[in-house]
Amino acid sequence: MKKVLIANRGEIAVRIIQSLKELNIQSVAIYSTVDKDSLHVALADESYCIGPAATSESYLDIKKILQVAKASEADAIHPGYGFLAESEEFARACEKEGIIFIGPTADTIELMGDKSQAKATAEENGLPVVPGSDGIVRSRAHAHQVAESIGFPLVVKAVSGGGGKGMRIVQYPETFDRLYSEAKKEAENAFGDQRVYIEKFIQDARHIEVQILGDGRGHAVHLYERDCTIQNHNQKLIEEAPASILDEETRADILETTADFARNINYRSAGTVEFLYLPSENAFYFMEMNTRIQVEHCVTEMITGIDIVEQQMHVAFDEELTVQQEDIDLQGVAMEIRINAEDPERNFRPSPGPIEQLHFGKGRNVRIDSHIYPGYTISPYYDAMIAKIIVQGKDREDVINRMSRVLDETVIGPIKTNLSFQRFLLDHPQIRSNAYDIHFLDKNNLV
Amino acid sequence: MKKVLIANRGEIAVRIIQSLKELNIQSVAIYSTVDKDSLHVALADESYCIGPAATSESYLDIKKILQVAKASEADAIHPGYGFLAESEEFARACEKEGIIFIGPTADTIELMGDKSQAKATAEENGLPVVPGSDGIVRSRAHAHQVAESIGFPLVVKAVSGGGGKGMRIVQYPETFDRLYSEAKKEAENAFGDQRVYIEKFIQDARHIEVQILGDGRGHAVHLYERDCTIQNHNQKLIEEAPASILDEETRADILETTADFARNINYRSAGTVEFLYLPSENAFYFMEMNTRIQVEHCVTEMITGIDIVEQQMHVAFDEELTVQQEDIDLQGVAMEIRINAEDPERNFRPSPGPIEQLHFGKGRNVRIDSHIYPGYTISPYYDAMIAKIIVQGKDREDVINRMSRVLDETVIGPIKTNLSFQRFLLDHPQIRSNAYDIHFLDKNNLV
Repeated sequence: MKKVLIANRGEIAVRIIQSLKELNIQSVAIYSTVDKDSLHVALADESYCIGPAATSESYLDIKKILQVAKASEADAIHPGYGFLAESEEFARACEKEGIIFIGPTADTIELMGDKSQAKATAEENGLPVVPGSDGIVRSRAHAHQVAESIGFPLVVKAVSGGGGKGMRIVQYPETFDRLYSEAKKEAENAFGDQRVYIEKFIQDARHIEVQILGDGRGHAVHLYERDCTIQNHNQKLIEEAPASILDEETRADILETTADFARNINYRSAGTVEFLYLPSENAFYFMEMNTRIQVEHCVTEMITGIDIVEQQMHVAFDEELTVQQEDIDLQGVAMEIRINAEDPERNFRPSPGPIEQLHFGKGRNVRIDSHIYPGYTISPYYDAMIAKIIVQGKDREDVINRMSRVLDETVIGPIKTNLSFQRFLLDHPQIRSNAYDIHFLDKNNLV
Repeated sequence: MKKVLIANRGEIAVRIIQSLKELNIQSVAIYSTVDKDSLHVALADESYCIGPAATSESYLDIKKILQVAKASEADAIHPGYGFLAESEEFARACEKEGIIFIGPTADTIELMGDKSQAKATAEENGLPVVPGSDGIVRSRAHAHQVAESIGFPLVVKAVSGGGGKGMRIVQYPETFDRLYSEAKKEAENAFGDQRVYIEKFIQDARHIEVQILGDGRGHAVHLYERDCTIQNHNQKLIEEAPASILDEETRADILETTADFARNINYRSAGTVEFLYLPSENAFYFMEMNTRIQVEHCVTEMITGIDIVEQQMHVAFDEELTVQQEDIDLQGVAMEIRINAEDPERNFRPSPGPIEQLHFGKGRNVRIDSHIYPGYTISPYYDAMIAKIIVQGKDREDVINRMSRVLDETVIGPIKTNLSFQRFLLDHPQIRSNAYDIHFLDKNNLV
């Protein structure tokens, strides 16, 4: 591998270029006109402007990206996350043009992109899924039968549903008949389709995900798990590894099952299997599989010492994965905080603009992944995330103390950021005591 | 321990405050008038101006520092390195005032501060020292006897000597008589004292030092060794851990011997035993012991995961050292590069002034210890070191690649720094191939 094109921007483009440089591989950046002063452009060995700010004409334009890849004689393309990272069309186009796509096969992307197929595949391969009617409820008798078998709370959902219409959460058996009828009626009114299905309602859950790495030749390992429960409406804010809520047996079990799953589907590259975890039942429920590197991969790198991007490169070039499960030692605990250019006092609305003051907290066991620098202007066109602060320590308390210290030292201005909001969260008694679920921010009226 | 005063400035003051914050200990900074905008002042919980720029009236003024310590009700003082860190007078004054000195006892500092006593103590305790006449040469016959037993090259040195006067390096037995006479005669002429002593001449050596940690209660461990061979006239420039030039047996031997030494002298706190290492003979020669935390402690922290400052705190408060030798795992390789505000093109003369452009390379396995920020003005009064860049990796090549990448990303201006000189060194074939000695820069006419 001599040259890799990075089909992305921002911190992940910078992060990929950093690994390429350390591996003595040439890097090719692409950028939209508004990104011409971006750090990924400055750091890459070559860079090409591919269009205007609008992503459809730049970072999502498969044809243009492949043109640049061919013109620059890149051997491979790393898609990062977001944009085209999970586009089977893009992966297939790369395969067709003889350019290596650094990720799983297009078939794997397609399979996992279809959520119902993904769930079925997960279930077939022994991953725990949310129990339910396994499709449409055929009759009221069938509904009762399903309810009895999965228990309460459960949720009745319209097959054609969306936006909460035709959906009822049922907490108690006494209200089941009434709410079941209501859901069907509302579905009929809203969509002209009264078909519903039933699933166990997973509440007070934590978001736990397992990082896996496979070579597409039957060998795969897990790189332990992450807890990404602190979210603002599905946007992760704080991520930790490992998930300190799990006991050793539960952890070993889900890790092994997930690694088996990766082997069974002959997974290639880095991937993440996301679960809801219900502490009260000590049970996992498969949500989805992400077939790309994730924002929060850094916490895993911190506790395993493995460069996930480097491993992606190796296996993309049809090399065997040399990492063996027994060689992966867990080094303490890591936490990542996402710094977004947004105003917590104005409903987290984006706060683009030039950066004039910039100082990151530094020191022992601190990693900063970021594309910003003093004088850089944050564009309104793309993601508001401007930095990830990752720290490692001997235990969760150590890590929270270190992160608090680093955030206290960090200065970013005059744009607004969620820095003080994140700092506030770190002192929240529920976060300190590790007692929260994915609705923590909502339940506390913090968002 | 509730509150600690830091009797220092610059990056080491910042680094100590960072550990204090993570341990929930209050910090008290002191500063001279020119340092009022320093980062250590901004980060500490309290800070006090103690005098003008001249160190004798500020950072070296024992009376003023103790006054601030008492007024602020600090329990302890951390001296950092340099300034009062190895002043037995300061350590004794602290002891007398009932303020804990975070370091060894005043007696230990005094013992190791006297270089001939230190050498004798080292020898008594089994550390290898430079062989020689063990004092004054009594006669020509004695001189021949010493020369025969230690071999060539050797050095004849005037007891009253200095500046190379009365000193002769003797490479071959044939020239011994002539040069021995010359040395005595020159000594007589220069100092009115013709007494000489003889030592083995250690050339082409590497600088290797062992980090130790003891609790002053008989328990001590080593934290492996560092190679600090790349020096500019005794000023270390690049430091690595562990020393990749050593084979496993040699390493184990010197580490064990040094840890025994620390136990024998009942050493308390962090300390470093410095050796010259002669690869051709696979032999170590004791140079001195530094009874303080060193600039290059970070590479040791990177490969052991231990916070040396935290351990210093524990044992200073008469706690047992809980670190056990068998628990210390080596995590790959680490390297530190010192960034100095100096002009490599003008004989490395200091380049103070305001910092306008500042961007540090970041990312995976990178640690930055620094007290500078955009807008900070580097004062001409103190040390020219403005940052330490430390990286960790799986082996020496990985580490050099990562360091090169980080230096390439780093921008500091408009002041001059040794950044490009350090970057040049990293590409030097002798550094890449690990084939150099302490005179590397001189021998290559690089300084």
